[in-house]
Amino acid sequence: MRIALGVLGKIARNHGIERGVILSAIGSLQHVVFRNVKRNTALPVRPENTQEIEEAGPFELLSLEGNLFPSEGEGEPIIHLHVMLGSPSGEVRGGHLFKANIFSTTEIVIGKIDGSSVYKAKSDVTGLMELLKR
Amino acid sequence: MRIALGVLGKIARNHGIERGVILSAIGSLQHVVFRNVKRNTALPVRPENTQEIEEAGPFELLSLEGNLFPSEGEGEPIIHLHVMLGSPSGEVRGGHLFKANIFSTTEIVIGKIDGSSVYKAKSDVTGLMELLKR
Amino acid sequence: MRIALGVLGKIARNHGIERGVILSAIGSLQHVVFRNVKRNTALPVRPENTQEIEEAGPFELLSLEGNLFPSEGEGEPIIHLHVMLGSPSGEVRGGHLFKANIFSTTEIVIGKIDGSSVYKAKSDVTGLMELLKR
Repeated sequence: MRIALGVLGKIARNHGIERGVILSAIGSLQHVVFRNVKRNTALPVRPENTQEIEEAGPFELLSLEGNLFPSEGEGEPIIHLHVMLGSPSGEVRGGHLFKANIFSTTEIVIGKIDGSSVYKAKSDVTGLMELLKR
Repeated sequence: MRIALGVLGKIARNHGIERGVILSAIGSLQHVVFRNVKRNTALPVRPENTQEIEEAGPFELLSLEGNLFPSEGEGEPIIHLHVMLGSPSGEVRGGHLFKANIFSTTEIVIGKIDGSSVYKAKSDVTGLMELLKR
Repeated sequence: MRIALGVLGKIARNHGIERGVILSAIGSLQHVVFRNVKRNTALPVRPENTQEIEEAGPFELLSLEGNLFPSEGEGEPIIHLHVMLGSPSGEVRGGHLFKANIFSTTEIVIGKIDGSSVYKAKSDVTGLMELLKR
């Protein structure tokens, strides 16, 4: 049982992926924590505008979309992931992924982005880490 | 605040992408309009067989799948997108995207398809724009 | 009207794709059969820990994620797919896909994976077919 985001960062580093995109990810997850923006939220998005949701599962991992880009300065790369989960009855739930444990397995294909100088930095407009071009 | 489909067409044109596929797209959207096929629909699909849904949001953009291909003749390229949206409580809704405004940001990775002569034309069988091989 | 998984296997074979990943798939499906893991399931996952769901549709095909890898030995390649479906009212349902018929059309882009020796074999730990490195 491993934490999905930590594993992704390690996999990327081990394969020399500075910038990457999730091309595909399916499997099953449990103990998933994600957050979604509340209604009537204005920009910039503040922590109190978001709702954190924790679900035990296990769930089918139906989709994991997102990317990995370096942060401004010397920090860790920023992994931005949105997840969708299938419940036993087939209902689908999801949002901006904070953390998750792998239940049975997760099959992830990451595409390496070459020739890009795009990075992530905090935006005053949205209040979030956004993609910027150097 | 910009219209997602218009932006996509412009990005593709600016990068010389005649045929492309959305490899990844996450972020947040608002004022989303999509439509889904009704039960008991037979082919060809007619406008009255579909249900248009408009939702204010904002929503987490959990997935945007689709592609861009030239249309038969001299028309604009056809952008075909299916969207999935996360509500504040984690419920997921979605369908065939007509239009949407970006709320905070949208991070889109488009793959360029080379060496293809596939294009879109109206099919008498389905009533929809379908992929055809020249 | 064709069975989605059979079509995928044939397409892959015809294009010399031994290992591949679904980069994008949208369209519409009907008579979809999928299964999801039940609550309180422990590893290894047994058939009685999963719930099979059959739905007539038609549905918007909102996402089809997954991959195709050779199985250990001389068997058929293993196609592993997770599906998400949009109902007329915009509700999304989905899970581990067993079979489906195409309703109007399905536009699938498959990426070929080169230079890999990864294959699928039954895992005693999870009870499922898992990716292994030779």
